[in-house]
Amino acid sequence: MTSPSDGAPTLRVPQPHVPLRVTVWNENRHEQEEPGIAARYPAGIHGAVKEGIEENLGAAVAVRTATLDEPEHGLTEEVLAATDVLTWWGHKAHGEVSDAVVDRVQRHVLAGMGLVVLHSGHWSKVFQRLMGTSCTLRWRSEHDRELVWTVDPTHPIADGVPQPIEIPEQEMYGEFFDIPAPDELVFVSSFSGGEVFRSGCTFRRGHGRVFFFSPGDQDYPVYHHRDVRRVIANGVRWAASVRPERAEPVLLRYDTGEFTEGVDYRTATGRA
Amino acid sequence: MTSPSDGAPTLRVPQPHVPLRVTVWNENRHEQEEPGIAARYPAGIHGAVKEGIEENLGAAVAVRTATLDEPEHGLTEEVLAATDVLTWWGHKAHGEVSDAVVDRVQRHVLAGMGLVVLHSGHWSKVFQRLMGTSCTLRWRSEHDRELVWTVDPTHPIADGVPQPIEIPEQEMYGEFFDIPAPDELVFVSSFSGGEVFRSGCTFRRGHGRVFFFSPGDQDYPVYHHRDVRRVIANGVRWAASVRPERAEPVLLRYDTGEFTEGVDYRTATGRA
Amino acid sequence: MTSPSDGAPTLRVPQPHVPLRVTVWNENRHEQEEPGIAARYPAGIHGAVKEGIEENLGAAVAVRTATLDEPEHGLTEEVLAATDVLTWWGHKAHGEVSDAVVDRVQRHVLAGMGLVVLHSGHWSKVFQRLMGTSCTLRWRSEHDRELVWTVDPTHPIADGVPQPIEIPEQEMYGEFFDIPAPDELVFVSSFSGGEVFRSGCTFRRGHGRVFFFSPGDQDYPVYHHRDVRRVIANGVRWAASVRPERAEPVLLRYDTGEFTEGVDYRTATGRA
Amino acid sequence: MTSPSDGAPTLRVPQPHVPLRVTVWNENRHEQEEPGIAARYPAGIHGAVKEGIEENLGAAVAVRTATLDEPEHGLTEEVLAATDVLTWWGHKAHGEVSDAVVDRVQRHVLAGMGLVVLHSGHWSKVFQRLMGTSCTLRWRSEHDRELVWTVDPTHPIADGVPQPIEIPEQEMYGEFFDIPAPDELVFVSSFSGGEVFRSGCTFRRGHGRVFFFSPGDQDYPVYHHRDVRRVIANGVRWAASVRPERAEPVLLRYDTGEFTEGVDYRTATGRA
Repeated sequence: MTSPSDGAPTLRVPQPHVPLRVTVWNENRHEQEEPGIAARYPAGIHGAVKEGIEENLGAAVAVRTATLDEPEHGLTEEVLAATDVLTWWGHKAHGEVSDAVVDRVQRHVLAGMGLVVLHSGHWSKVFQRLMGTSCTLRWRSEHDRELVWTVDPTHPIADGVPQPIEIPEQEMYGEFFDIPAPDELVFVSSFSGGEVFRSGCTFRRGHGRVFFFSPGDQDYPVYHHRDVRRVIANGVRWAASVRPERAEPVLLRYDTGEFTEGVDYRTATGRA
Repeated sequence: MTSPSDGAPTLRVPQPHVPLRVTVWNENRHEQEEPGIAARYPAGIHGAVKEGIEENLGAAVAVRTATLDEPEHGLTEEVLAATDVLTWWGHKAHGEVSDAVVDRVQRHVLAGMGLVVLHSGHWSKVFQRLMGTSCTLRWRSEHDRELVWTVDPTHPIADGVPQPIEIPEQEMYGEFFDIPAPDELVFVSSFSGGEVFRSGCTFRRGHGRVFFFSPGDQDYPVYHHRDVRRVIANGVRWAASVRPERAEPVLLRYDTGEFTEGVDYRTATGRA
Repeated sequence: MTSPSDGAPTLRVPQPHVPLRVTVWNENRHEQEEPGIAARYPAGIHGAVKEGIEENLGAAVAVRTATLDEPEHGLTEEVLAATDVLTWWGHKAHGEVSDAVVDRVQRHVLAGMGLVVLHSGHWSKVFQRLMGTSCTLRWRSEHDRELVWTVDPTHPIADGVPQPIEIPEQEMYGEFFDIPAPDELVFVSSFSGGEVFRSGCTFRRGHGRVFFFSPGDQDYPVYHHRDVRRVIANGVRWAASVRPERAEPVLLRYDTGEFTEGVDYRTATGRA
Repeated sequence: MTSPSDGAPTLRVPQPHVPLRVTVWNENRHEQEEPGIAARYPAGIHGAVKEGIEENLGAAVAVRTATLDEPEHGLTEEVLAATDVLTWWGHKAHGEVSDAVVDRVQRHVLAGMGLVVLHSGHWSKVFQRLMGTSCTLRWRSEHDRELVWTVDPTHPIADGVPQPIEIPEQEMYGEFFDIPAPDELVFVSSFSGGEVFRSGCTFRRGHGRVFFFSPGDQDYPVYHHRDVRRVIANGVRWAASVRPERAEPVLLRYDTGEFTEGVDYRTATGRA
């Protein structure tokens, strides 16, 4: 749960860090189990995403990776405390992600860590937890062409990308996409079969920023696409917090006329 | 979890029902344990909320109540399937609400059941689950006057209420209120101590509608206030689904050129 | 201008009226000048729109029409005061709509009149005035198939329409569509050429509600399409005000502790 | 009008410029006519606003000022083309601002110029034009204390300001404030008299960004307040475009399968 009642220490991490510390998380199962996918992504999907971020942001970022099969999925308290923005890719093993890690990621996002959720990460526990919805959609993997249209040209996440981005072959994701109405709708995609999808969406959760971007798949070389990489890098930069310190929102009591020195009364209710 | 993979039968409930079927849920602990509160709300907080809805909507609604100490908290699958809109009040025993009931309420909301969350229900598991955030805030119970200002005069939930609603004595809830940016901000409150609060907010989740309204407390007779009752009744009416059937969003595969006969491939991923 | 300083009497019109009074406005030039279009729409585009609203709302509405070439374009103060919802279609003669009528329509919308803007009405002076933007877009009239996808299944405007609505032949309207981010995005369209468009959008302005819906054209029989008619009828119903009286927002001064009896100080500033 | 049909040359200005070029516009009448106000703002309100921006952004900005009584109000085509962000303060002479200058400012905003509207600028022609509403509100100038609460702690405009900002004496602005629902609500204020106000709001219009911030007045020394200055500076930085070139959205026709080389058909409709 996101309640501060779970005994975890209150998060207090200075930010932002320069260079921006990015952790690219990947399920990394397709790459181990399917030679075609391993050939498409020799360094793993995480390797391709990492490369795309570095290619665009250079010395402004320090990128590491983490994968499902590492202890605690590579997302220990220490790793998250040292991560300004986390990117998330998963597909066939969402159910294997431990609830404890999901809790931890949620706490860090609410405290200010940025999160970029990619493609099939739409059905991850982490994204479902932060959205409060099922995050289901319609789909088909039949080599559709995807066109990614910018509908908010003032948004920094759309900086430097063509109108539209053309992706020659891609899995189709279509509406209805069961997410809350996004705070900002940046991209809408069409597929050659006729479907549409809200493919670039931002959300604020607590002190953190979340960006969802749907292009990208294990069966198509989408993470090698120049413009897709640019969007992911823009998303990483956008999701980084402007706040000086990572800290969860907490329930505090304030005396009349006293606005800054709240007292923690969390134990007064059933959530403590 | 909200995944359709939990073995629960797919929800298929015709709606809307006339009269509108409303279930008023209440924790109902303060009333049993504190004589002053029992005197303030002789029929329980649920009784007062029920009375307020009936007073405003009359024969258009059929209202029942349910409380924490009933089996399954009075919220069995059958009760929820026969509920068009659920209202939620809890405070000191949020932690005692079973996760199974929280899962069930979330499923029904995503499938189209309306939900009206009242006051300290902000910290309920149900609301946290649907928001994805901590839902914390600042507070003080020191007899502040609350003024509830309408900031969206076109909204049906604001129909028939004065500008502002004056509540002589009330608990203070103040910002930062850790919720997602609401889809529609209907009311903003001030308190005599100087705090402000987004006191009337709407959210869409799945096929369902959620309204949060903060005025109301066990220590003040707020649920006897005419205008507060009007807003709750307006909220109930607004939250009722317009869809003909209650059904969860599901993940379906569609062939190219085929838009209506999707096939359930849920077992293809780790969530099944 | 929308300033209350223009000497016009303050609007005070009781509402809502039953049946709902709808005025369907049409430029009505193509029908007079082009036989093919006259054949497609023998009663004019306004006739087809009127028929579609009546077909869906029956006795709940009383629909009249008005056209550009009538005195004051058929939109006198008296007509607008007796109109709960106005629909707007124009294309080739936007520039002939008098600014006085645009002012009048804007004042009535801000006071609570509903407005449904159809298709090429996107470039009308009325819509530009209420949006504050250019309302430009990309387009092509080459018999594209349009699919209209619901992205907000909880919205009453999407009630009763298939997912997606299929329009066999239609003019293409594509992004970037230069409008403010809509309050609610209800529909997104794709075209067979690959473009996407935010085709169903709601906006609040003052005490009024505005719905923009793009399907519909003089060169295709779109206003005879069952689902398009349903959406327009839903939009009319949604746009009708819930407020008891049509009244413009005004700038008033209030003494401390006095919240309801504001005094008109409009003449104190340069706008009077 | 915002139509591209007005014969003005299409805007093509490279951006962003480093340092950021800011023009602080002020009506500058109170300062000339009322000694008390001149004493409070010896360099004019524009001088105080300029100083506040420079104090916070230093060498990152180059700030100039312009005032109503200059030719073309100091806002020639050349000045606007060399302005990345314009700030706007007016009060008693809104009616004297020429419509030609309002047209020009609107065109530049739609093309990508940032705009920060301050306090009584809410009733300026420029703001009304971009909002499409009356922008009226309730008010009182009786030395209320204003508290400015951050409701979006992830927003860069809230960076570095206390929760709440305390302004000892200020004019009261209260709801209902007749603006479109803002894209982002950053601040909500309370006043000691009990009113509330959406005091910090963002809006996208065309390729431009608009920030409205209400604290600030001629009768109180609010533009000398450290935190108010910080917010204005944050707003200036936020409003600067990320796009490489200032260009108005235009209506273009595209052939099927051709997405980037649109053809200008503006003269095909009545707006040309």
